[in-house]
Amino acid sequence: MEGLQLQSQNNVSTKKGRLYIVGIGPGSTDHMTVKACEVLRRSDYVIGNGTYLDQIADLLDKQEIIRSSMGKEVDRASQAVELSQEGEVSIISGGDANVYGMAGLVLEVAEHTGLDVEIEVVPGVTAITAAASILGAPIVNDFAVISLSDLLTPWEMIEKRLEAAASTDFVISLYNPKSRQRRSNFSRAIDIIKKHRADSVPVGLVKNALRGQDEDCVVTTLGEVLKYNEWVDMSTTILVTNSESRIWENNSTKRIITPRGYHRKYDY
Amino acid sequence: MEGLQLQSQNNVSTKKGRLYIVGIGPGSTDHMTVKACEVLRRSDYVIGNGTYLDQIADLLDKQEIIRSSMGKEVDRASQAVELSQEGEVSIISGGDANVYGMAGLVLEVAEHTGLDVEIEVVPGVTAITAAASILGAPIVNDFAVISLSDLLTPWEMIEKRLEAAASTDFVISLYNPKSRQRRSNFSRAIDIIKKHRADSVPVGLVKNALRGQDEDCVVTTLGEVLKYNEWVDMSTTILVTNSESRIWENNSTKRIITPRGYHRKYDY
Repeated sequence: MEGLQLQSQNNVSTKKGRLYIVGIGPGSTDHMTVKACEVLRRSDYVIGNGTYLDQIADLLDKQEIIRSSMGKEVDRASQAVELSQEGEVSIISGGDANVYGMAGLVLEVAEHTGLDVEIEVVPGVTAITAAASILGAPIVNDFAVISLSDLLTPWEMIEKRLEAAASTDFVISLYNPKSRQRRSNFSRAIDIIKKHRADSVPVGLVKNALRGQDEDCVVTTLGEVLKYNEWVDMSTTILVTNSESRIWENNSTKRIITPRGYHRKYDY
Repeated sequence: MEGLQLQSQNNVSTKKGRLYIVGIGPGSTDHMTVKACEVLRRSDYVIGNGTYLDQIADLLDKQEIIRSSMGKEVDRASQAVELSQEGEVSIISGGDANVYGMAGLVLEVAEHTGLDVEIEVVPGVTAITAAASILGAPIVNDFAVISLSDLLTPWEMIEKRLEAAASTDFVISLYNPKSRQRRSNFSRAIDIIKKHRADSVPVGLVKNALRGQDEDCVVTTLGEVLKYNEWVDMSTTILVTNSESRIWENNSTKRIITPRGYHRKYDY
């Protein structure tokens, strides 16, 4: 860190600092926004966890890179806030900067330290809509997004949200379905949803959405989804669709369609 | 249409067709993905409503442009499906292609006509996360997205979803809060949410998020939000945050922070 401080003083001490919280999208840089690419290219510092820094490696050359790891989010946010007083800093967030992203924590730290530099949040494509694009059109109507991680939200609240969303026919997107410590949260969530929704409802599971060759996807139903319980991991996004959704099989590709409701208004 | 058919036969009859459903993001082309830009540039036809075509005008030159208008979604989808049999077609959707977007309707028409060309959905930044980026960090935890348009969903179902989401502390994003025919839906929705949530809960209203100089934003509370009832129009995205959210005022900018829950785990 000492070498880094020194270098930054030489390079950028006359510049006004600026802090960007950048959503880098689902994985491949193709699905980043033009703005996110520009901001990263011109930053003095880019801070993020190793997985996300690897995804944007093509865009990085002269920037000072600060690698962090999962679970070190508070340290990372503090470091970004500190460095932004002397240069342009991008702290990166997988997907969108807001959706389970770094924007909240970085602003909390900025508030706490009374930071006096410009802060800009740059939105990105979320894992939810990335997964949806691979499945076809599963989320065309009202939807609810629920993380199954009970590290940061009490499980009782997660259950209440699952009940509420399942009983009112929201399309439901499940985030963080599993981790090493929480193997059963996914099956518990599915059991709650099944109390309110028919076994025939389409369910899409997408792993590493739009991250290139690691991408994988399953189209199944609520009645069958627990057959894939072992396949689901922490990088899987789950979409449980609604009572009007259906599976369309075309040229051996299965897609999910959730109608917006135009069939109630039009013939086609 | 006859001239268009003739031209397309001359130009692209030997090419295999392809259909892209492209989310063009919130407005400014800066916030489009690299992939969406590429797809639009190489398409033979670009189909969309006039407002969205105007937003991407910089990217269009040699493509055949087919302008449509609001309320003509079914015609537009049918035309896209038809033309995709003879060339590369992009049908564009504001924000993301899934979230209240064109993906559902286009796949429904493709299914109905037994379309046999490659279909690719290209995701984009939604109005929700665009609005969130302007407000700071309002959606860092579980959230529900509800359209207040009762043209395509019965109002009774909308009310049930509002009750369910409000009573379980979801951050709530309201879409389509008003139209000429539905002036009171917004205030009715707020009244329902108020039954379950304190007047002090922060609310953000964003008009034309990331569309350049037309962008406008208000940070207020649930108790005060109906003072802005006249200001809210059909292009406003509303974010009603949760019981843990707060307003941070810094350098005369008001932002909303919804904690992810790290304060339960860490000191900072």
